[in-house]
Amino acid sequence: MKAAFYQEKGQFKIGEGKLIKPGPGEARLEVAYCGVCGTDVHIYHGVMDQRVGPPQTVGHEASAVVAEVGEGVKNVSVGDRVAVRPLKFGAPHVFDKGFAHVGKNLKFIGIDAPGAFQNSWTVPAYTLHKLPDELSLENGAFIEPLAVACHDVKIGRVEKGENCLVIGGGPIGTLIAFVLKEKGANVIVSEVNETRLAMLAGFGFDVINPAKENVLERVSELTSEKMIDCAFEVSGSQPGVQTMTDVVNVRGRIVMVAIHGGEQKTVDLFKFFWSEIELLGARLYEEDDYEEAIRIASSGVVPFETLTTKVSSLDEIQQVFEEIDNNPAGMKYLIDCQN
Amino acid sequence: MKAAFYQEKGQFKIGEGKLIKPGPGEARLEVAYCGVCGTDVHIYHGVMDQRVGPPQTVGHEASAVVAEVGEGVKNVSVGDRVAVRPLKFGAPHVFDKGFAHVGKNLKFIGIDAPGAFQNSWTVPAYTLHKLPDELSLENGAFIEPLAVACHDVKIGRVEKGENCLVIGGGPIGTLIAFVLKEKGANVIVSEVNETRLAMLAGFGFDVINPAKENVLERVSELTSEKMIDCAFEVSGSQPGVQTMTDVVNVRGRIVMVAIHGGEQKTVDLFKFFWSEIELLGARLYEEDDYEEAIRIASSGVVPFETLTTKVSSLDEIQQVFEEIDNNPAGMKYLIDCQN
Repeated sequence: MKAAFYQEKGQFKIGEGKLIKPGPGEARLEVAYCGVCGTDVHIYHGVMDQRVGPPQTVGHEASAVVAEVGEGVKNVSVGDRVAVRPLKFGAPHVFDKGFAHVGKNLKFIGIDAPGAFQNSWTVPAYTLHKLPDELSLENGAFIEPLAVACHDVKIGRVEKGENCLVIGGGPIGTLIAFVLKEKGANVIVSEVNETRLAMLAGFGFDVINPAKENVLERVSELTSEKMIDCAFEVSGSQPGVQTMTDVVNVRGRIVMVAIHGGEQKTVDLFKFFWSEIELLGARLYEEDDYEEAIRIASSGVVPFETLTTKVSSLDEIQQVFEEIDNNPAGMKYLIDCQN
Repeated sequence: MKAAFYQEKGQFKIGEGKLIKPGPGEARLEVAYCGVCGTDVHIYHGVMDQRVGPPQTVGHEASAVVAEVGEGVKNVSVGDRVAVRPLKFGAPHVFDKGFAHVGKNLKFIGIDAPGAFQNSWTVPAYTLHKLPDELSLENGAFIEPLAVACHDVKIGRVEKGENCLVIGGGPIGTLIAFVLKEKGANVIVSEVNETRLAMLAGFGFDVINPAKENVLERVSELTSEKMIDCAFEVSGSQPGVQTMTDVVNVRGRIVMVAIHGGEQKTVDLFKFFWSEIELLGARLYEEDDYEEAIRIASSGVVPFETLTTKVSSLDEIQQVFEEIDNNPAGMKYLIDCQN
């Protein structure tokens, strides 16, 4: 069976993968589609080699069909169409307080363990969530990033009628915007790429280009001076970090979605004191976020087809990563892993 | 009647104050004791002149006896012993979402309006909280800062048995430690001043001197690797801001108590993402925090006498501020405003 191997910075290679018989509690999947995540692009850039240990098969935004189940597996059967929650829980640690999805001993499948860019993939059966009939396998590959968005909105405790600003309108920011819309919030998206802005405006969101407009003035106009009840920092940039504190109102919440690695950013801590605002970290997802993502995806509110920039075959994976690197307007690239 | 006037940077002057007859909804107080707050010291340093508008009487940590009430006042009577919640609420603004204590149009009595460093003080009657018989007027001057501490702990959602670190063991940090202890939390205080450390250790708190010890190692030992459920950043320093994110565990909370004015600090935003931690701003107090402070003060758990560095007369106010500036080990200085 075919598998894509991340080899070293900038290099994927297609080769023969090892079909792994599922052990007790495991399932072997025929992978259908797998989206390319920003994290996969980081891996491709060679900055996560120590964690990944190349050559390694990566990829974690997968839909699949169950091909074989190991001993004791009860939650899925052969032939089930599933989305994969790629978290392998380790031993609990007192530091984790029971939050296994961000626990000290968590292994992320697709980074710390082999991922989905291959025909056949063996994973713990507890990672599987059945897809309803109305959801295609192609759109099922969006469940993982949509679950991220559901988790972010849950952490933000957003309620109907609240004003929200999403700072950064890439794939995750856009999915957050749709989850917020589904919750009945008023959504504004701030993004610098004009192609993405046009797409977001086409979806009916209020949009701001911070490179051309005064964000605070526009937010004040759009919210009749109420300003923002919950902001989502998805840009990973210093200007985004400044905007996140500037826009929120008294007791306003900020959800930290972006991974601010590298150099530390400066933060307006005075505003935290002055207006009693909150900064809430969010990472990955919990089981209920997957169920919520499947519910929202099935409701038809997210235009997955428009968000799908391109579907390519496993053989084309090298070109896909090269194209992503040269297309700041791109949204979601899917790899068809069936052949 | 006698009043102390802040004149200009470094200068107080004792003069003749104006006895103000209480209007409708107001009460005239005979001030008993008024504590010196860090904010008063900032004012004395001349950095808040634009807001204060000298010459002006400042001071806001007061206990008093009601001397006269205006029309319609029902909540207090002449002779009542009271603590003052020095907040004058302005017109509500949509930005405030009903949180008047941090609202856009809030006036702080003692900064934006005349304060308590005088014999007679006229304030809105709704600012008054009756003191129970068992609480002396001297200790009643601690209700305002203790209400700050109660508010901070409330914002931190601290529960019995949780591990808490207070970063900065000055007057507010120490009162936070006592409120935490009263809630049944395990309290560690980090402080660099050895005199304060000895006092805090004498109160039974675990203490760490970050200038001499490795805070993370000590916290890990003291908590058996659980680390901190809720940290309180009261230091206002860059090392404190680094420690606050380093010490908290998964879903750990950090309460931002310090006023980080001036240069912006760098913050480890990656930790917010990685361990889903929270930063919660806290400012001043709400009505229930005063009631809670009075309850805790009456219970006798806070050793106010030990925390009172010195009691001085209104005539000595200039020397008091000079002494505070030269005594980093000092805790609470009280001004007796009765003569």
